[in-house]
Amino acid sequence: MPSQHASPESVRERARELESTLERLRARALMLDLTRGKPSSAQLDLITDLDGCLGGDYRCEDGTDSRNYGAPEGIPEARRLGGELLGVPADTVIAAGNSSLELMYLFALWAMRFGPDGRTPWESDGPVECLCPVPGYDRHFAICEELAIEMVPVPMTGRGPDMDAVEALIASHRKIRAMWCVPKYSNPTGETYDEETVRRIATLGSNAHPAFRVLWDNAYSVHDLDDHPPASANVFALARAQGNEDTIVGFASTSKISLAGGGVAFLTASDTNRNPFLGRLANMTIGPDKVNQLRHARYFRDLRGIRAHMMKHAALVRPKFELVLDRLQSSLGGKDCGTWTVPKGGYFISFYGEPGTARRIVRLCADCGVRLTEAGAAFPYGRDPEDRHIRLAPTFPPTDELETALEVFVTCAELVTLRQRLRAND
Amino acid sequence: MPSQHASPESVRERARELESTLERLRARALMLDLTRGKPSSAQLDLITDLDGCLGGDYRCEDGTDSRNYGAPEGIPEARRLGGELLGVPADTVIAAGNSSLELMYLFALWAMRFGPDGRTPWESDGPVECLCPVPGYDRHFAICEELAIEMVPVPMTGRGPDMDAVEALIASHRKIRAMWCVPKYSNPTGETYDEETVRRIATLGSNAHPAFRVLWDNAYSVHDLDDHPPASANVFALARAQGNEDTIVGFASTSKISLAGGGVAFLTASDTNRNPFLGRLANMTIGPDKVNQLRHARYFRDLRGIRAHMMKHAALVRPKFELVLDRLQSSLGGKDCGTWTVPKGGYFISFYGEPGTARRIVRLCADCGVRLTEAGAAFPYGRDPEDRHIRLAPTFPPTDELETALEVFVTCAELVTLRQRLRAND
Repeated sequence: MPSQHASPESVRERARELESTLERLRARALMLDLTRGKPSSAQLDLITDLDGCLGGDYRCEDGTDSRNYGAPEGIPEARRLGGELLGVPADTVIAAGNSSLELMYLFALWAMRFGPDGRTPWESDGPVECLCPVPGYDRHFAICEELAIEMVPVPMTGRGPDMDAVEALIASHRKIRAMWCVPKYSNPTGETYDEETVRRIATLGSNAHPAFRVLWDNAYSVHDLDDHPPASANVFALARAQGNEDTIVGFASTSKISLAGGGVAFLTASDTNRNPFLGRLANMTIGPDKVNQLRHARYFRDLRGIRAHMMKHAALVRPKFELVLDRLQSSLGGKDCGTWTVPKGGYFISFYGEPGTARRIVRLCADCGVRLTEAGAAFPYGRDPEDRHIRLAPTFPPTDELETALEVFVTCAELVTLRQRLRAND
Repeated sequence: MPSQHASPESVRERARELESTLERLRARALMLDLTRGKPSSAQLDLITDLDGCLGGDYRCEDGTDSRNYGAPEGIPEARRLGGELLGVPADTVIAAGNSSLELMYLFALWAMRFGPDGRTPWESDGPVECLCPVPGYDRHFAICEELAIEMVPVPMTGRGPDMDAVEALIASHRKIRAMWCVPKYSNPTGETYDEETVRRIATLGSNAHPAFRVLWDNAYSVHDLDDHPPASANVFALARAQGNEDTIVGFASTSKISLAGGGVAFLTASDTNRNPFLGRLANMTIGPDKVNQLRHARYFRDLRGIRAHMMKHAALVRPKFELVLDRLQSSLGGKDCGTWTVPKGGYFISFYGEPGTARRIVRLCADCGVRLTEAGAAFPYGRDPEDRHIRLAPTFPPTDELETALEVFVTCAELVTLRQRLRAND
């Protein structure tokens, strides 16, 4: 790509080159999908023997028959596994169905209606707000929209949310009742909250409304791409040490460890939060799928078992991240047409184009048969104020498809940027 | 037991006999549980090979990988199975997680907050009411209590709810927004709604509030104890024929077919109800456990497969029902101290003692080591106005324990009745 100071003619020539590349790619009638953070079939194949691993023995360690009704809090061995995953005692954990998103939804819904502590409904004082680090996870934002919780964006810094902004907002906005956090390999930037950030989050409860809760979605705690993962501080221990244990509610699941559709989800919370939640859960269902919980507990045994399994995932996922990052660098590096994050784990890479280009890039990619997550999706109400951010999800497609998709992407990204530059010069 | 007209002395003597029987039983330090409608281990053993039945093939018939995210409406083969179970087209069915109670809870919750049609919230006009045929299912009532839906009891008749009462209430109470129904082998009376009752229920929508919904919990549709089950009419077809298809929302699950804790739940509803529900479901979770859905679809194939399996259940459950009914008849028959239902299927027998005895009988049984469902549990707010009804759940205990539990029960029932009679004569 010609530099920012190149002549309009050389820019036009490069644009024509890219257009003909794109024409060639379009002729292939591609149907590629980089929209969602889904594991690939090869990753799912790693655990084909989960189904059947019980070998007819359905008895839990405490004698419970996993096949029958009951135990809304989950079975002991699954709660222990969830506790290890989240870094908390097993007895603070609820092991539930297959979806941690459902647990977050229910926690927020019940907090709105009945209060996070079962006594002080968020909605009783009128409209409430939630702090949303951006770019963030679109499904978190969808929960807020569904429940009419107003979203207040806070920028991510590369080391987690901008805590100066968070603290100032909490001090000034008395309607704030929640904050979303994906502390490790955050969706979609891939950054991990550093220790100071976690420490300051653990302190928020001291200055916030008593019903304020941090919704700590630790979705990628074991999703490292190499052997030197960034350190991540234990927010639960830090909060407890300051008497703020009621502020943090943690979530995790095995969706991206075992099976995306057939895993086990976990919630951890203080007694104040957990007991009313469990009471509501027990009114809603007679118990979770304990058979599937037992499968997971037997299969993985403990965190060591999970980590060993995740090394196999990393061996499949790392080359895809490398492919994307290499391709971005080789095609767009030094061209002033975008920057991107270089995550050490998780499921996403964030691409930041020139302001005003993201929607056009995504649309052009779609025209050429490559579906990306909708531009703006990583922002509350779908509004990326600068129209710059695009989430790339490299895990699902096979490597050859990913390679082609990236060829389309880098071509579109450069072309859209050049066209914008030409328009600006008109 | 001495007849109603027996001398106080002969009544006292019989009471002493029963007390000494009870003393002997108490000395055995029993710990028996007839509280819940749970399948026995032997029933659950019928399907030990469900886990592992996929044999490594996780592909659904439409090519979907059941292991990955997506398909909030469930997989086609599971929706078809649910459709056969409910007697409705597969495309009106949502196949979900392991709990139909959860689907009912969510339907009621979302109806309250957003409206059953996604537009007209039940709660927008102030407090609302729900018709509750009694005796009924305590967990239905718990949902109403949780959501602050006022419960209006309607008597059961042996052929279903008293429809004269239902129609009169709907005509006069404009706050009624829902009605619970367990149409076949109703929990806990075991009665099946006759055709006229079903026909009148299918017509309710013509005179009720537009947001009125019948919550049709067909939990026991295939739970016949013999080869001559009572006929049950198709409420969905009847309602549709009158343009009332929006009035009926159906629920079922395989909890008491496959595994109580690890089955698949289904909801069926018209587009008007189903589409907004599905939208909310998709905001709450990325998809159900499709792996477990596929297990069920492969294992049972179709309704015929389910019926064949249920014959094996009947072979285990029927002798227990016979044992209870025989024992009630041989010990209490002709003694004016209670009546009971004689169900042809389902999970429960209803016992009706003399007015004012149920709580005492349940308490005395508990003193002797036999836990029964709390007296009053089958009534809204736990209030049995006559204190007569006791729900017996024969399926869970092994036969020898059931026999002992019944010995305790009939002894307590007679003793409490005699004591009451003696007090009345004082």
